[in-house]
Amino acid sequence: MNHKTKLILDLDTGIDDSIALAYAAMHPDVDLLAVTGTFGNIETPIGVRNALDVLALVGRSDIPVYEGRSCALGQDTFCRHDVSADIHGQNGVGNLELPASPREAEKEYAVDYLIRKMQEIQEDLVIVTTGPLSNLAEALVQEPSLQHWPGRVVSMGGAVTARGNVSHFAEANISQDPEAAKLVLESSIAVTLVPLDVTMRSRMTSSDVDIWRASGSPRGKVLSDMLQYYIKHTLGTDETYVHDPSAVICALHPEYFTMLPSFLTVELEGADRGRIIVDHARLREPNPPTRACIQVDAGNVERELRQCLSRL
Amino acid sequence: MNHKTKLILDLDTGIDDSIALAYAAMHPDVDLLAVTGTFGNIETPIGVRNALDVLALVGRSDIPVYEGRSCALGQDTFCRHDVSADIHGQNGVGNLELPASPREAEKEYAVDYLIRKMQEIQEDLVIVTTGPLSNLAEALVQEPSLQHWPGRVVSMGGAVTARGNVSHFAEANISQDPEAAKLVLESSIAVTLVPLDVTMRSRMTSSDVDIWRASGSPRGKVLSDMLQYYIKHTLGTDETYVHDPSAVICALHPEYFTMLPSFLTVELEGADRGRIIVDHARLREPNPPTRACIQVDAGNVERELRQCLSRL
Repeated sequence: MNHKTKLILDLDTGIDDSIALAYAAMHPDVDLLAVTGTFGNIETPIGVRNALDVLALVGRSDIPVYEGRSCALGQDTFCRHDVSADIHGQNGVGNLELPASPREAEKEYAVDYLIRKMQEIQEDLVIVTTGPLSNLAEALVQEPSLQHWPGRVVSMGGAVTARGNVSHFAEANISQDPEAAKLVLESSIAVTLVPLDVTMRSRMTSSDVDIWRASGSPRGKVLSDMLQYYIKHTLGTDETYVHDPSAVICALHPEYFTMLPSFLTVELEGADRGRIIVDHARLREPNPPTRACIQVDAGNVERELRQCLSRL
Repeated sequence: MNHKTKLILDLDTGIDDSIALAYAAMHPDVDLLAVTGTFGNIETPIGVRNALDVLALVGRSDIPVYEGRSCALGQDTFCRHDVSADIHGQNGVGNLELPASPREAEKEYAVDYLIRKMQEIQEDLVIVTTGPLSNLAEALVQEPSLQHWPGRVVSMGGAVTARGNVSHFAEANISQDPEAAKLVLESSIAVTLVPLDVTMRSRMTSSDVDIWRASGSPRGKVLSDMLQYYIKHTLGTDETYVHDPSAVICALHPEYFTMLPSFLTVELEGADRGRIIVDHARLREPNPPTRACIQVDAGNVERELRQCLSRL
């Protein structure tokens, strides 16, 4: 009997989120329950639209998409970083015009959906986040018993031993809602952070662009165009980082990563607001529920991604 | 045949350096070749005097002490931090009057001594540093072939996943000469950093004070008074961190520590000057010579220190 991993993806669907989504949606070992949309690379409604379109593109319009928070906890607006527009394009998907899915997002609010599913499925569910942790944090605020939820969260975010990407200290996802990240990390939930320390060590290359394009399929063409745009606007060489797909890969293959178990939290004050650090009050406590990936077998991550997406 | 570990200790002899020195000087498995003095907790000449006195106290006036740099690379003065006077006392040893050793430091300059010994002993030598890396860096500048020295360096310094102790980012030893630390870390030498991440997880307590004092020996009395002062002026509870002794323990018992192998370097620019980070240019290079301790079996570290110093 095939035991598939039940996943919910919480996405701010830009380019690398789209690749992570395609990977998860096409992976034979994944039971992708839903996408919940958040802000970050792009405003929430546009990200939700992108997720619907990408799912249509890969033939998975059976997967529901829920619209979630549009801004950080305690805020009422979200101001997109200029650098997000540079890297992901104005529309979040490299300014490409994706074949439009006729489908709309579900009516249920993403946070309500998360609460419902976390209560229903418990330890067999993995929530993978590739944006700010705002949806999940709101779920914990609304339903405090979920602080002890026995499932797993795998989050792309943070810079632990590496320099941040929005400041020397902070990585974009954490810095866009540090309070939310702190709330999630300081809960009792088993959270695995997938920070820049590992996502920058793995690469997608222009040869992936060529291979995807050579598939001749519409989805191969669209995703290769997206990746080409992303390569050009991130490293500007012939390769780029594997940020968001690394989180999904980590959920399926934790053995590719070296993890530091530690009570992690988020610095809220000072120039390093948004920095991931160890919780100084809990330095000597055993059995931390949180861990940060700090090294990676990049060869295996790249091979895994390439192998799954070769079906494009 | 007993195979002792050949050590040179490079110390800015304050209180925890004194405890590290007593531990190394009294350890049956250590062949302590010399102490080289540097600045940091205290000005170099006073630290050298403290080292001579502590060695006399533990009956090891056979171990030569060399005076080294008095300030950071490229500087001509050293201004002691106020916090160092608070923690270590005006004289570096808790304002206690140590029994004065009649001995003087050697005539040879510490950096010349380091170069000579590194060339002579090669891979069988471990240099343990508990202050800024200025002496070692000057040795590498004076004798560039030592960049490929095959011995080991174990350095108390840095804050990797933890907050720093002189700023949110920087730990005192690294911040007092970031250029020196960068030079040493970017050489090909096998450097193990022993940062706050692990030194704050191990503790010496007021019961150690009582045990040392109960020995009835003069050295037991002096070291227990020092530790009591240090406990009072660091955590202010009934325990304190094991900063400098952790570096010596790590040299002898690397198995007590979880290490992150990575090309490490030092941030020189911005608010986080002095922060230890991974070298972004070498993220994907294999076989880094440097590693940072990021977790520790604190029980074993504390037991090891207690056991050795029970001979006080």
